[in-house]
Parts: sequence; structure tokens; C-alpha cells
Amino acid sequence: MNLALLFAEDFVCAERAVLTGRRLTHLRSVLKVAEGDLVPVGLADGDIGTGRVLQFTDTEAVLQVELTDPPPAPLPLTLVLAMPRPKMFRRVLQTCATLGVKDIWLINSYKVEKSFWQTPWLSEENLRENLVLGLEQARDTIVPRIHIRKLFKPFVEDELPALLKNTRALVAHPGTSSTCPTHINGPATLCVGPEGGFIPYEVDKLVEAGCEAVHLGSRILRVETAVPVLVSRLFDAGA
Amino acid sequence: MNLALLFAEDFVCAERAVLTGRRLTHLRSVLKVAEGDLVPVGLADGDIGTGRVLQFTDTEAVLQVELTDPPPAPLPLTLVLAMPRPKMFRRVLQTCATLGVKDIWLINSYKVEKSFWQTPWLSEENLRENLVLGLEQARDTIVPRIHIRKLFKPFVEDELPALLKNTRALVAHPGTSSTCPTHINGPATLCVGPEGGFIPYEVDKLVEAGCEAVHLGSRILRVETAVPVLVSRLFDAGA
Repeated sequence: MNLALLFAEDFVCAERAVLTGRRLTHLRSVLKVAEGDLVPVGLADGDIGTGRVLQFTDTEAVLQVELTDPPPAPLPLTLVLAMPRPKMFRRVLQTCATLGVKDIWLINSYKVEKSFWQTPWLSEENLRENLVLGLEQARDTIVPRIHIRKLFKPFVEDELPALLKNTRALVAHPGTSSTCPTHINGPATLCVGPEGGFIPYEVDKLVEAGCEAVHLGSRILRVETAVPVLVSRLFDAGA
Repeated sequence: MNLALLFAEDFVCAERAVLTGRRLTHLRSVLKVAEGDLVPVGLADGDIGTGRVLQFTDTEAVLQVELTDPPPAPLPLTLVLAMPRPKMFRRVLQTCATLGVKDIWLINSYKVEKSFWQTPWLSEENLRENLVLGLEQARDTIVPRIHIRKLFKPFVEDELPALLKNTRALVAHPGTSSTCPTHINGPATLCVGPEGGFIPYEVDKLVEAGCEAVHLGSRILRVETAVPVLVSRLFDAGA
């Protein structure tokens, strides 16, 4: 937690927030803050700044909040991701939030096991918690939007074309002939398959919808590695 | 497992290998192979190719092995990594192996907790198992070398300068003024700190030894995200 993300409900008046639970524990155990200390804070979907610790008890921390700077720029990226295995999903979600991905579409694919959709990590509360953990890591405040689409074909035929409009549209697929571009630094849509990849029918449908199939070299990466590798290729850090 | 990595001890004669344990289970449960099938294989530190399944029983798979191609090119990178938290260490190790990092120095740092060095994941057997999992993901065969240095200062003063020689030497450190270079595609040494970063004394020592401090933008990344992001910036996929 490189920043404590604050929500409207944390505020008891205009510039005063009260932290409990996970964030309180973190302030105490990891940051070891005391009354008078300044801690980095951010307002969800708002600016970042500092909180001066006014009171620090066993049950709450009261912060005098001053928000002074905008959060890091979001990536102009729409990520279309075949629903990952639950164990990996949580980490991928945090990683996406940390990297600045703001628009994530979780879709079905032939190699997505039905059970993946049953994971408790998909509950609204758990999605939010993991996104917040990822944002706090990056000192970001803009909460990504998650869209869940459990049917591949209707999504690709009816919704994807509109998402792709005016973006560089890519599907990452090992073994294709084009190498993934670098430094595009503009609006992009990136489709990433499940472990084992999209099946040829799915790649064809994504290409029909307007995506270009690209590879990352001969190494096949796990989804949790492919996402940061792709984002790092497409967007310059600090650009 | 996109390839079954074979070791000298798996061979019963020149071109015949017998698989048991994890690899057998994977062939049965995930790849669902039967006698006559071809499975991708590689010889540790050697070439890749295919194995024809001659026999497949509950206890072993006998493969007729033909090695035909070189593994993916290794990265010309020496990675100097502050020992990560055990839970993350295992994944970082696999990720490094998948990405093609062949030379990994695990070093101490002020923010590395003493307990991290006690993890069973540092045993020779566990190191090897996780490296193999990472290699199999990438269809690579060249087993990375791991060097363990539990004292920061002697390593940085006495060993690091020789490692840096004739390489582009970098230390990833949030908040420095230079942005991390891209597409260097040549010999590099990259130092990555622990969660919370190297302390200023450590950055100074690394810079004294010849490293340039570089950042990745305003977002602070976890080590397991920073490594693929950095590797992807420094080296072109398929270059």
C-alpha cells in the first residue's frame, strides 16, 4: 500500500477521513505511523495528496486530508481477457489496476473452464478489493470498470466492433506471423486468451471483428506475465 | 507445461526417455495423451523436439525422443534481485525462467526480512523445480543459474563491478530522474530492489559500482510485475 485509497463513506466532514480495518492495520503494522505523521492518500476517482494523522487508536485513524495532485495518467487501453483460473485471476486483476488499465472485459472462451465463473473473486466486493489493492500499489485512484460477458460469440459479434472503433485492435496469439507492435501510445484494444490460448475459431472471430493477431516471440507466457509484457510494449512508462 | 523437459537421468538409452511423477500426471490429466501421440519435449540445456509415446501406463510414459531445434535465444541479461518475500519468490523465479533470464543473483537489502532467507523455496530441489516449470511454460531448456549472496556490501563492492563490465547496467528505482531505456537488445545488468525499494545508501552503492538509476514512470510496481515490464522494455520479443 503506497497510498491509502479513501472513499466518500470514509469522510466524516469535508477534509477529515476515518480509517478502520485493512488500511488501519497497514498504517499500524507496516508503515508504523504515529499521530502527526503524513501518509500518502488518494480519493477514489479523484486526486492524490497527504493525510495528517490526527488521532491513532486501536480501532481507527483520523486523517486530515489534503488532495493536491492528479493521479497517474490512465492507459488508453481496453483489455479483453478470457476469464483466468481463479488463483491467477486475483493477481491479474491487481496487476491490471497497478498498470493503469481502466477498462477490463472478462469473456468466455473454449478453454475457460466453466468452474472459473463460479469463483468468489468475481463478487462485486472482491473485485473492488483487489482493484483497490492494485491501485494503492501504483498510487492511483481511478477504479477500473469490469464487464463480465459469459458468452463469447454474442460479445465478439455484437459488442466488440464498437469497442474496437478508433483503437489499435490486437489479439495476442502465439504462432502468428506479426510481432506485437511497440510504443503505440494511443488508444488500443488488446485481447488476451486463456491458458492454452484462444482456439482457431475464436482467433478467426476476433480477426473478423477487426483485431490483428500478433505474437510476442517464441516463448509462450502465462497470462499474468503476458499482460505486463504487452502493456510495457504498447505504452511507454511515463508517456 | 508446453514442453516436457527431460534430464539425462530420464533416458534409458540414447533416444528413449521414461517419464514419471509430475510430468506423467500432466501428460495424462492435462494433455490426455495416448500411445502413438507426439508431445513436445526438450533436453535440459539442449535442443527441443518431439517425443513419440511408445508406452503409457499408470506409472510411466516411455517416449521415443527426437531433438531437432535449438531452444529460444536466452536474454543477454544478468538480473540482480533483492530476495523477494517467499510467496512471491516462487512466482518470480518461474517468470524469470519463462522470460529467458539465465543469470539471477539473489542479494540482501535493508528491506529484505531476515526470514525470507529461511524459505524452503531456496533449497536446490525447489529452485530447480520452479525454474523447470518456468522453462516448460516457454518451451525453453537452458536452466538459469541462481547465485545467493546474503551480504549486500561485499557483493556490490567485490563482485558486482565484474558482472557489470561491458553491459548496460541499470538499477530500477522509482523517483529517479532518468526513464528506463528501451530496445537495448544487448548485454545488460539489471538490479531490482525489494518491496519498498532499495534504501538511498544501497542505491548510492549500486551507482558507485557503475549502475544507472532509472524509473518506470510514476506507478510503483510490485517486483513480480516490474520484472516482466523491465524485460519487455529492454529486449524486443523475438529479437
